[in-house]
Amino acid sequence: MKIIGGTASLPIAEDLSHLLSIDLIKIETKRFPDGELYVRLLGPVENEEIIVIQTTFPDEYIIELFFLLDAVKRAHAKSITVIIPYFGYGRQDKQFKQGEPISAQALATLFSINVDKIITIDPHKDHILDFFTIPAYGISAVESIADHLRTKNINVVLAPDKGALERAQNAAKILNCDVDHLEKTRIDGTTIKITPKTLDVKNKNVAIIDDIISTGGTMATAIRELKKQHASKVYVACTHGLFAGNAIEKLQNAGCDEIIATDTIQSPFSTVKTAAVIAKTIHDFSR
Amino acid sequence: MKIIGGTASLPIAEDLSHLLSIDLIKIETKRFPDGELYVRLLGPVENEEIIVIQTTFPDEYIIELFFLLDAVKRAHAKSITVIIPYFGYGRQDKQFKQGEPISAQALATLFSINVDKIITIDPHKDHILDFFTIPAYGISAVESIADHLRTKNINVVLAPDKGALERAQNAAKILNCDVDHLEKTRIDGTTIKITPKTLDVKNKNVAIIDDIISTGGTMATAIRELKKQHASKVYVACTHGLFAGNAIEKLQNAGCDEIIATDTIQSPFSTVKTAAVIAKTIHDFSR
Repeated sequence: MKIIGGTASLPIAEDLSHLLSIDLIKIETKRFPDGELYVRLLGPVENEEIIVIQTTFPDEYIIELFFLLDAVKRAHAKSITVIIPYFGYGRQDKQFKQGEPISAQALATLFSINVDKIITIDPHKDHILDFFTIPAYGISAVESIADHLRTKNINVVLAPDKGALERAQNAAKILNCDVDHLEKTRIDGTTIKITPKTLDVKNKNVAIIDDIISTGGTMATAIRELKKQHASKVYVACTHGLFAGNAIEKLQNAGCDEIIATDTIQSPFSTVKTAAVIAKTIHDFSR
Repeated sequence: MKIIGGTASLPIAEDLSHLLSIDLIKIETKRFPDGELYVRLLGPVENEEIIVIQTTFPDEYIIELFFLLDAVKRAHAKSITVIIPYFGYGRQDKQFKQGEPISAQALATLFSINVDKIITIDPHKDHILDFFTIPAYGISAVESIADHLRTKNINVVLAPDKGALERAQNAAKILNCDVDHLEKTRIDGTTIKITPKTLDVKNKNVAIIDDIISTGGTMATAIRELKKQHASKVYVACTHGLFAGNAIEKLQNAGCDEIIATDTIQSPFSTVKTAAVIAKTIHDFSR
């Protein structure tokens, strides 16, 4: 077994290489003068079980993974397992309006070509896994996030909405603390108030846990409200930190005490490593 | 029959809609805050023969075409013909080194999914057409380019190298003028001189015709040499004007009198329209 890390996920590939004691095959990537991408495997893969790991966000990493898989297949790998730490376009998982594609399904079909097995972390919805035409597995980074929060004396874990409650409950169990979900209330038809459904957060350390933080808008409103209710510390944690536009600024200005994300998307806030949970899954498959 | 134009090729789609008297189906495209692409068809395609036209360069237009095709298929088109005016990655048409993908083949396979027929203009090499797993046709824009050059009193058409001579011969035939190809000669092992193989260009109007202009480096050297040999006017014409980096500046500084490209890639120099030759091909298929 050997591992190949695409540009978006090279740090995870290096971690996995150490944890699983398997060789990391280096790759060369460059842009031609016209902007087209060049990729090349710098080691042999013939007759090897190959793991390719690459987050498919933003778009350039979709193209890179697509070409990498072609190179691996062409070089006669014995089998190919693809790990997609963050599966881009996962929120385009149905037709919201007539005339739309289902981008998540189109990409899942694409990444099923020449591939034997797919693993992705915290897919936005579980039914996305069914879009792949090969065996596909979703694994959770919530335990790793909860582990990271152990030193923070968290009293309450909050889910951003009712649908995300299960993820928050799993974290609360590990942190041995209370759990609740946030509820949006419209005031006067325009203002939105976001508060915990039942729990009092006064003088409590609170962690809001979500799968994705994109623009951070709702999260910022929630932080502000919790601070108004005299929460002691407010942490926001997510698996996939997209942090679009000025999301970080919004969260910090709202009074967020710490922003925590995993390394499925590399950023200054991706402090939680996912290699251990991926390694466990790969190890389970090998038995 | 109806036509859909992707963002890269909307002007050609509009031309085709007029020439063929068929409806153009509008599309909506936008970027989500995190940069992901949204596309949507704004008209019905059910049970219709659909033509989708989109140049697959740069990378963002590959993704857009991929999602457009998913939307068209999902909306139950009767058949899908894809026209790719400029097929990106066409120069990655073989493994130059071990460990490389064949990017052109990988993309050709991708764009064969859900599609009935492919048409592309002046593919870099003809064998690229065989990479598609559906019927694929290459058409030439050389006649359209030659038509555009008619008013310039061209005396000599030059191919940039021996391999491109056939394209130049076709243009020379239309322009009823001489034809030759350029030859590189190494001087002192370092300097490269690029001159016509046999013809004298003194006081002649010369047009160098190539399929692609990328960085324009070789072309600029050739222009400079032809001017040194007292060519009267030097035009450079190509089907696909990539004009990477400061290519335009290089060509102009070398003394190029006019830069001419087709609209397979939109730029201020894409003055030759390809819709007529595409329409002819579609018309031929319909008979």
